[in-house]
Amino acid sequence: MKIVTADSACSILNKDLMPTNILSTVAIVVDFPYETPIKVHARAGDYSIKDPTVLVHELRLCEELLGIEPAECVHFDLTLGGINILDITDEFLFQLNLSPRGRSVLHAILPDLREIALAIDEKYHAPVLAMGKRSLPVRLAELYASAYGIARGIKIASVSEAEEPIYLGLPEKVLAFFDEKDKVKVTSEEPMEKSLVAEVPISNGVLVEPFLNPMTRGFQVLRLTKRDA
Amino acid sequence: MKIVTADSACSILNKDLMPTNILSTVAIVVDFPYETPIKVHARAGDYSIKDPTVLVHELRLCEELLGIEPAECVHFDLTLGGINILDITDEFLFQLNLSPRGRSVLHAILPDLREIALAIDEKYHAPVLAMGKRSLPVRLAELYASAYGIARGIKIASVSEAEEPIYLGLPEKVLAFFDEKDKVKVTSEEPMEKSLVAEVPISNGVLVEPFLNPMTRGFQVLRLTKRDA
Amino acid sequence: MKIVTADSACSILNKDLMPTNILSTVAIVVDFPYETPIKVHARAGDYSIKDPTVLVHELRLCEELLGIEPAECVHFDLTLGGINILDITDEFLFQLNLSPRGRSVLHAILPDLREIALAIDEKYHAPVLAMGKRSLPVRLAELYASAYGIARGIKIASVSEAEEPIYLGLPEKVLAFFDEKDKVKVTSEEPMEKSLVAEVPISNGVLVEPFLNPMTRGFQVLRLTKRDA
Repeated sequence: MKIVTADSACSILNKDLMPTNILSTVAIVVDFPYETPIKVHARAGDYSIKDPTVLVHELRLCEELLGIEPAECVHFDLTLGGINILDITDEFLFQLNLSPRGRSVLHAILPDLREIALAIDEKYHAPVLAMGKRSLPVRLAELYASAYGIARGIKIASVSEAEEPIYLGLPEKVLAFFDEKDKVKVTSEEPMEKSLVAEVPISNGVLVEPFLNPMTRGFQVLRLTKRDA
Repeated sequence: MKIVTADSACSILNKDLMPTNILSTVAIVVDFPYETPIKVHARAGDYSIKDPTVLVHELRLCEELLGIEPAECVHFDLTLGGINILDITDEFLFQLNLSPRGRSVLHAILPDLREIALAIDEKYHAPVLAMGKRSLPVRLAELYASAYGIARGIKIASVSEAEEPIYLGLPEKVLAFFDEKDKVKVTSEEPMEKSLVAEVPISNGVLVEPFLNPMTRGFQVLRLTKRDA
Repeated sequence: MKIVTADSACSILNKDLMPTNILSTVAIVVDFPYETPIKVHARAGDYSIKDPTVLVHELRLCEELLGIEPAECVHFDLTLGGINILDITDEFLFQLNLSPRGRSVLHAILPDLREIALAIDEKYHAPVLAMGKRSLPVRLAELYASAYGIARGIKIASVSEAEEPIYLGLPEKVLAFFDEKDKVKVTSEEPMEKSLVAEVPISNGVLVEPFLNPMTRGFQVLRLTKRDA
C-alpha cells in the first residue's frame, strides 16, 4: 500500500537551547516494506515553532506530491487516532481532551485542512488520516525533514556574518552522523527503528559539533561554526 | 526464587494490518538469574483479540505447569500493581480508574481467576500476583509465545490454499530474526532487555519478509508467502 | 554553560527485591559538550528511600561544589518544569497536580531548599532550577551516584559477617559492567544516552552477579557474595 505523508523538523535554538522556528518540511511516498521513500519532496520552511499553519503547509505538500506519485492514503501529522480529516465533527472535537490552546489551534486550521483533504479526495480518492505520532511513515518523513533541515542550517552557518556559533536542534530521539564529510546521515534512536535512515548532501566550510541538549533529555543539538576560509 | 507465568502473542492481521486473534499461549518457569526459562509449556491458541477468557486460559496453563515444575509464586498477566488475585475486593476494583469496558471484562473473568488462584494456593501454596507489564518473567513468556506463534503462523501459511500472503503481527517492541533457516530467534527491543531471547524451530517452504507496521510504530509484521513446491 | 547538579542512587534491596535506602549522593559540574563531568563530588549516604531530606542533602552538596568550581546554574533533582526554587509560590504548588503525600513532602523540605537556594544566589549568583528528570546533567549525576553506590555496596559486602548475599538495586535503565576487575563502568540504557559513562574503582574479594529484577522491568540488580579469603 502506497502512503504519502509529510513532516517538519529542525530549529535554530535560542540562548536557552530552546527551539524558535521550523527550518524544513518534507513530503514522502513510501511503499512496502516502508523503509525507504520511493519519492522525497523537500521544502525549506520558515515557521515560528508556535505557528499551526505549518500543518496546512504539510498537507499542501502531500497534495502536490500526490500529483507526481499516486498513493492510496495520506498519513497526516496530527495525532487523533487515525480519524479521516473529513469525518472530524464538532462533537468529536468536544469529546477530545484538548487543552484550550490545542482546541483553538485546531479550530483555526481545520477549515483549510478540510478544503485540502476534500481536493485530495476528489482528485486522488485518498483519505487523509490523522495518524500523527503513531505512523511509521510520519516518523520517516521527520528523519528526512531533519536531514534537509541540517543541510539548510549548515548552509545558513556557512554564509553567516556573525562570529557566534549557531545551535541547531533536532527532533526527539533523532541522531545525526557526519562520518562522510559531504553528507549527513540521520537515524532514529527509538527502539525498533534502527533500520530507518535519511541521507542528504551537505556543504563544506562549517565545523559541526554534535552534543546532547543539557536542558532536555533525548534531544541532540548541532553547534555550527563557520570555518575560516 | 522460582516464578511461573504465562502470556499470549501473535495474530493474523486483517487488511488494515490490525490484529484479529491470538495464536499462541506459553507458560514458563524461571529461576535466578531469570534470563532463560527452566521449563516451557506452549499451547496453540484461537482466541479473538477481544476475548478476555485468554487470561483464564493463561492462568490454567500456569496451574498445569506448577504440577510439573514447582514454583514459589505466579506472575499473572494483569497489570494491577502486583496485588494477590485473592485479595481483589469490590472496593479495590471501584478505586481503580478502569474504563467501563475494562471493568465489565474484569468482572466477567474474576470468578474463574479466583477459582484457579484458590486451587493454586491450596495445591502449591503459591500466590497469584497481578504483576502484568511490570514483570520481567511475563515479558519473557511473551517472547516465547511470539516464537511459538511465529512457528505456528509459518505452518498455517505452508498449508494454505490461498495465493495471498498472510500477515503475522508481533507484540510491541519484539523483533524476529531468521538468520538460520530452520529456526526463529525472537528478541526484545526494550532498553535493558537485550539479553532475553526465545528460539523455536520452524518449518520450511514459506518466504518470510519482516517489516515494520506502517500503521503503528513499534510493531514488526511478518509477510508469509507459500513458496512453490 | 557550566551547570552544577546532584543526584542519589543505589539501594540495598529487601527480600522482595524492593529498595529500602539510598547509598550514595554525587554532585558534579559539567560544561559543553556535557558528556563528562569536569568535577565530581561523591558522598556516602544513608537515607531511607522515603526520606525527602535527601533532596536537601543534594542541594547542600551542590552549594559545597560551587565553592570549589563555579557554575552558572544549578539543575535541581525535582521535576517541576525548570522553575527557579525561589519562584515557587503557594499558588504554584496549588496548581500542580500533586498527590497528598507529594504535597506534604514538598511543604516539609521547601523552607530548607529556599534557604540554600538563597545562599547560592547570594554567593554565586546561580539560579536553582527544578529540572529533575528532564535534565541531562541530573542523569549524568545519577550514573556517577550509581557507580559510587556500587563501589560502596561492594565494600559493605566484603566486610559483611553474614553468609547471605547482598542484593544491590540500580536506578531505572542503568547497567553496570565489570569487564575490568578493579573498576565498575556504569552506562545508561536510555535511547540517545549511549555516550554517558561513569567509572569508579572497586575493591576485590566480592563475587558480583548482575541480573534483571524480575519484579520490575528496566532495573538491574547486583548479587554480591563475599568470596572466601
